[in-house]
Amino acid sequence: MITATILAVFATPHAGHFRTERVEALNLDLQGILGDRHYGFTRAAGAREKWYPAGMAMRSGRQVTVVSVEDLELIARTMDLPDVKPEWIGANILIQGVPDFTNIPWGTRLFFENGATLVNEGDNAPCRFAGREVAAHYPGQVDLDLSFVKSAKNRRGIVASVEQAGSIRPGPVRLKIPDNKNWSGGSLI
Amino acid sequence: MITATILAVFATPHAGHFRTERVEALNLDLQGILGDRHYGFTRAAGAREKWYPAGMAMRSGRQVTVVSVEDLELIARTMDLPDVKPEWIGANILIQGVPDFTNIPWGTRLFFENGATLVNEGDNAPCRFAGREVAAHYPGQVDLDLSFVKSAKNRRGIVASVEQAGSIRPGPVRLKIPDNKNWSGGSLI
Repeated sequence: MITATILAVFATPHAGHFRTERVEALNLDLQGILGDRHYGFTRAAGAREKWYPAGMAMRSGRQVTVVSVEDLELIARTMDLPDVKPEWIGANILIQGVPDFTNIPWGTRLFFENGATLVNEGDNAPCRFAGREVAAHYPGQVDLDLSFVKSAKNRRGIVASVEQAGSIRPGPVRLKIPDNKNWSGGSLI
Repeated sequence: MITATILAVFATPHAGHFRTERVEALNLDLQGILGDRHYGFTRAAGAREKWYPAGMAMRSGRQVTVVSVEDLELIARTMDLPDVKPEWIGANILIQGVPDFTNIPWGTRLFFENGATLVNEGDNAPCRFAGREVAAHYPGQVDLDLSFVKSAKNRRGIVASVEQAGSIRPGPVRLKIPDNKNWSGGSLI
């Protein structure tokens, strides 16, 4: 177990919004954050799933997104910007204290204080859409959207599914990393 | 991508059954195998989730189980038995040709010929219940249930969720292993 800290939580004010806003608490059932645009067991396939027809119904795996303050600082430094805020890129949870957070193993469980649990479904691939939101805050600079996609690779946090319903507020969180597998077939990839 | 082979598929004849029976095809929607006991986005927490109250509604993550013929042969050899059959331990899919199959990384996608896709949710921890089903086929021997739990560790296959609906039949399958992460925090576990 690793203990870390939730600094803030955010949700989309309406299902149509990409950007999130700071809220007091996230209320989760097993489909995600009540009222959020990513709520649901399923979703439509998009540009990230080039191998599926666009709009095909698929398992969500992206109910909640979590970013770390350390990774956001690294992105901002790489882009030579003073700040990249979690709300701009649609994050739901801001965490502090997990080294190399975006790369934590798939299947890691995040146990929150009020009973909610999330399962890590992998790193969140940076998209130009999030990059445009960052760019909108620095109107004097060019190509920030593309620069974000490059700079945020392996730093843009994770997507997660709800395993146990509950609420999430700022405070402590415990992370359970799955047993290391040491798969012997790695040379085949 | 790794290419492997589906040798056979199995389902429970009734939702109350633990053992599976060979079928021609598995028909999947996003909740799992139609008519199978593990069908559903959610399930009740059990002995595997000691950290949750028994019976609590939780995300399933165990819609489908996949075992490899190579791992089953290793289990049988370790237990000094002629055979351990996939049906006895409730498997849904028998795969051949992936080395060290049970340990493939979490998040590996299995793309089947008829459009179905599964996501690996991790190795299936051996339980004494499955061990008892193995023991029932070798009535002359003692403690096979406990011996199974030990011998099947890291060999009992994986549990998976449906990402894309479709059907699964014997034939080729392609596995997409997620990018290796090389998480730098491993020393903290």
